[in-house]
Amino acid sequence: MSYTAPVKDMLFVLKELAGMDTVAALPGFEDANFDTAQAVLDEAAKLCGEVLAPLNVTGDRAPSSWHDGEVTATAGFKEAFRQFVEGGWQGLQHPSEYGGQALPKLIATPCIEMLNAANLSFALCPLLTDGAIEALLTAGTDDQKARYVPKLISGEWTGTMNLTEPQAGSDLALVRSRAEPQADGSYRIFGTKIFITWGEHDMAENIVHLVLARTPDAPAGVKGISLFIVPKFLVTEDGNLGARNDVRCVSIEHKLGIKASPTAVLQYGDEGGAVGYLVGEANRGLEYMFIMMNAARFGVGMQGIGVAESAYQKAVAYAKERVQSRPVDGSAAQAVSIIHHPDVRRMLATMRALTEGARALAYVAAAHSDHAHRHADAAERERHQAIYEYLVPIVKGWSTEMVNDVASLGVQVHGGMGFIEETGAAQFYRDARILAIYEGTTAIQANDLVGRKTVRDGGAVARAVLAEIAETIEALAQVDGTAAASMGAQLKQGAQALANVVEFVVANTKRDPNAVFMGSVPYLKLAGIVLCGWQMARALLASTRCHADDPSFHGAKIVVAQFYAEHILPLAGSMAVSILSGRGGQSVLAMSEDQF
Amino acid sequence: MSYTAPVKDMLFVLKELAGMDTVAALPGFEDANFDTAQAVLDEAAKLCGEVLAPLNVTGDRAPSSWHDGEVTATAGFKEAFRQFVEGGWQGLQHPSEYGGQALPKLIATPCIEMLNAANLSFALCPLLTDGAIEALLTAGTDDQKARYVPKLISGEWTGTMNLTEPQAGSDLALVRSRAEPQADGSYRIFGTKIFITWGEHDMAENIVHLVLARTPDAPAGVKGISLFIVPKFLVTEDGNLGARNDVRCVSIEHKLGIKASPTAVLQYGDEGGAVGYLVGEANRGLEYMFIMMNAARFGVGMQGIGVAESAYQKAVAYAKERVQSRPVDGSAAQAVSIIHHPDVRRMLATMRALTEGARALAYVAAAHSDHAHRHADAAERERHQAIYEYLVPIVKGWSTEMVNDVASLGVQVHGGMGFIEETGAAQFYRDARILAIYEGTTAIQANDLVGRKTVRDGGAVARAVLAEIAETIEALAQVDGTAAASMGAQLKQGAQALANVVEFVVANTKRDPNAVFMGSVPYLKLAGIVLCGWQMARALLASTRCHADDPSFHGAKIVVAQFYAEHILPLAGSMAVSILSGRGGQSVLAMSEDQF
Repeated sequence: MSYTAPVKDMLFVLKELAGMDTVAALPGFEDANFDTAQAVLDEAAKLCGEVLAPLNVTGDRAPSSWHDGEVTATAGFKEAFRQFVEGGWQGLQHPSEYGGQALPKLIATPCIEMLNAANLSFALCPLLTDGAIEALLTAGTDDQKARYVPKLISGEWTGTMNLTEPQAGSDLALVRSRAEPQADGSYRIFGTKIFITWGEHDMAENIVHLVLARTPDAPAGVKGISLFIVPKFLVTEDGNLGARNDVRCVSIEHKLGIKASPTAVLQYGDEGGAVGYLVGEANRGLEYMFIMMNAARFGVGMQGIGVAESAYQKAVAYAKERVQSRPVDGSAAQAVSIIHHPDVRRMLATMRALTEGARALAYVAAAHSDHAHRHADAAERERHQAIYEYLVPIVKGWSTEMVNDVASLGVQVHGGMGFIEETGAAQFYRDARILAIYEGTTAIQANDLVGRKTVRDGGAVARAVLAEIAETIEALAQVDGTAAASMGAQLKQGAQALANVVEFVVANTKRDPNAVFMGSVPYLKLAGIVLCGWQMARALLASTRCHADDPSFHGAKIVVAQFYAEHILPLAGSMAVSILSGRGGQSVLAMSEDQF
Repeated sequence: MSYTAPVKDMLFVLKELAGMDTVAALPGFEDANFDTAQAVLDEAAKLCGEVLAPLNVTGDRAPSSWHDGEVTATAGFKEAFRQFVEGGWQGLQHPSEYGGQALPKLIATPCIEMLNAANLSFALCPLLTDGAIEALLTAGTDDQKARYVPKLISGEWTGTMNLTEPQAGSDLALVRSRAEPQADGSYRIFGTKIFITWGEHDMAENIVHLVLARTPDAPAGVKGISLFIVPKFLVTEDGNLGARNDVRCVSIEHKLGIKASPTAVLQYGDEGGAVGYLVGEANRGLEYMFIMMNAARFGVGMQGIGVAESAYQKAVAYAKERVQSRPVDGSAAQAVSIIHHPDVRRMLATMRALTEGARALAYVAAAHSDHAHRHADAAERERHQAIYEYLVPIVKGWSTEMVNDVASLGVQVHGGMGFIEETGAAQFYRDARILAIYEGTTAIQANDLVGRKTVRDGGAVARAVLAEIAETIEALAQVDGTAAASMGAQLKQGAQALANVVEFVVANTKRDPNAVFMGSVPYLKLAGIVLCGWQMARALLASTRCHADDPSFHGAKIVVAQFYAEHILPLAGSMAVSILSGRGGQSVLAMSEDQF
């Protein structure tokens, strides 16, 4: 099998780090205990390993193709999508009243990781559909919910997000698409949308586009954008498919990676206007879109973790098989498999430490989201929501940055074979590269982290998280051995670096925004390194506690945690130096354009 | 123009950092003064900008193609190669008695950078030919030199290096190709060679393969490998082309990048044996190959720098043109070009600082090579040779690692457009990825740096370099301003980190090789970061001195040097922590295969 879901590590994180038991104790999640999680994960692992992973290379070699406005998905994808929706996977975390399974995000998250690990291109279609479902559930009318959500959950239809236009990428204030009100309360939509993932395909009978556009009287900027439902086929009163709407896929992009996932240019209104229906209130479109975007951002973070896991598994398999050179310590007279060479181990351990750290942080964030939605106590809900929101840009930004390094190491472990496309390591390297760009580039995540998540509350949540880290550092001091000692020392320095940066950001963003924003991405990465290191420290503590249950598994967890402490956490200090030199860095801001 | 050679910066480095004047004063280089350098660089810039760079995208979209054993280069490449050789560029640094121009390596090096910046796939052909020329000049008989070298310099023929076999990549001890001696003194060669760059093509009338193989009585391992000339077409006594030799290109690879450069699988001896001629003495093949490989390794370092420069130029052009979002400091009410955003400046400054630092170090190394070859004093020749040899794995290893980060940032600056192949940023990202792999992976470079370059002389050369850095730090202390202060502080810490690691390596490699080799690649990167930082410090000093001559240029040099000090040099400290924790890292070495 090309991908085997790391169910054991996933369940370890769920139980020992993310508090599966406390999530299962939340109102409405009574049936979602650890045994449920295990059963669901085992089933997801089967589908992903047996059905979706084998199609990953297929999709890269024979991408979805465009002909005369229609897109045909890679052979096998349509059938796989059928299996996916028939298994109920699209509805995993959606309400049961619309056909969903209403499971905690904590259980859905590992499944989403698996899906993306197995086949990133495929997984994008359900990811976007999830976003559409969330937006409709949040802002749609009862009629809209009833009309669209069950079909999206059943997989008869899929969903898209239509934000980007040629002149409006990160800056949605520049959106120009128009929505003209009609006498019957509907709108006619005109404009060009680009980079629309799965914007056209043949895997489902209808596509529900959620489109940002401006009504004629809308104010300029982001406060004049509304959200519209524009179905590919109109839906009749009785819920059947009607006429083809005036939206056409004029081309799909030729991309570096995720080739099986069609990235469409959609043209609205060339033949009189595409029929659209306002979602929620006019001019609040961006707000609704951010609801689905925040869910999608978390999902993209999971994509990074999934691809990192796959790249790691492939590199390990090659390193065990490829025989080359004698050991540097002279312990064998003949060439050995390269997994015995220290530098190959360093690369594999780096890949694994980054992946496990990011996984643990993401699952912990998912648990906060569950508590934020379901906790009986309002203050607790608010507290969890604040932490979750602080973590989302970090999960998205850090997981998608680190996966580039992980996939690159995966290529490197393969040596010359890594550069040959048939090997498959290069596909992860290419596929992964979009993740730090779409759903908000790392800089956009970092702006969010600085502005909305750190400065707005004066650093309160960041400090609360740091206080939790301090408790972990104290717990490490109670444990014997070099691993705990090393982790304690490095986590302490990392946390101090993060604390210094948080105070710098809080103190300077208003008075010297350029100095702070020169360091915003480094701050995000520093936070990622330290918070994932914190989770590795908690894993170290848990594995020390449970060691006897499974010495091989827990022994490896402890080793990898120590490696994280010694090889990844030290970067935190150097990043803090860069960030805190922000004023010095301003000289770069003073350079004229000609000087570049 | 898609690429404009940075001639001004190149000449600055030649003159102010690499000692162009002292090189021009060496015996035999009397005509090679600064004016010569300027004239040569201007000419090279024209050829690269006007002829080679426009073919770069062409080659990516329509790679060289294989049909029935023959390879047709991308349309336009053959004519461009004609212009290249007619301009005398293949002979730049080769002896005039064979038709070369006998210029210093210091002048040839910027030309090679340009060539690779303009068109990496194209540049590989002359790079390999350079290697073949050097091997023949070093180990060939007078007859072999006379027969092959002038044709290689004139570009009538090209050269290749045939080392790798399916089971023998980094580990050449595993080479199996056979050479059977014939009555006439020639050999018959049998075997399969893979990853042979420009191993078959139609740009020249003949190809001179230099092939590693074993004679029947050869000892096992690397001490039983001999080097053979195997021309594609045999050469008659009078120097004309004779019969087709028994070497066939059975396929070319489908690769992540450098697609225009055909990577051949060559089959020797399927029809009775390919005629080959021993070069130098039997069983010393690897030694000769290392001569060309060291030159080629330096050349691959230049490839990294060239691609980094191109990626930077493309990103700058886009950042000046793309309008998106208002400035974070509120200095404009409308969206501005993204070069005004701090994070975009941070990315561009990172790309530029890494590129300029690596360029300066490489040119300084080239000057050491010139002194090593031509200095009147034997002790000085030896001193310069030792420094050059210390620098080669760093120039190769660091320049090819940093270019992956630079090309990745280049994609990131382009946002979503970076992921679209038509944009061109992704090509640099794909092309660059081979550089840290071929001609010895970064781990192989790091082994060389640890074993031959640091431990063998007990750290003497490394300490000599550190003593020179200390002088630069003292000079910085004499200069006013925040840039010099920042650089002085960070370079001091970086040099201390490097010094600690050198002593660790010297003290521990024999007694605890695993601990040291866990940190060998980090040591190489640390050395790259610090030595390039040292050159940036020297640039800062020179630009402070010359500021009035060209305030815009020198002002930018100072700003970029300060950025290097604050954003790149701090990484040195964190790497030293990882390396010095090597014993802790050994727990990763103790993991069983099953634990991965």
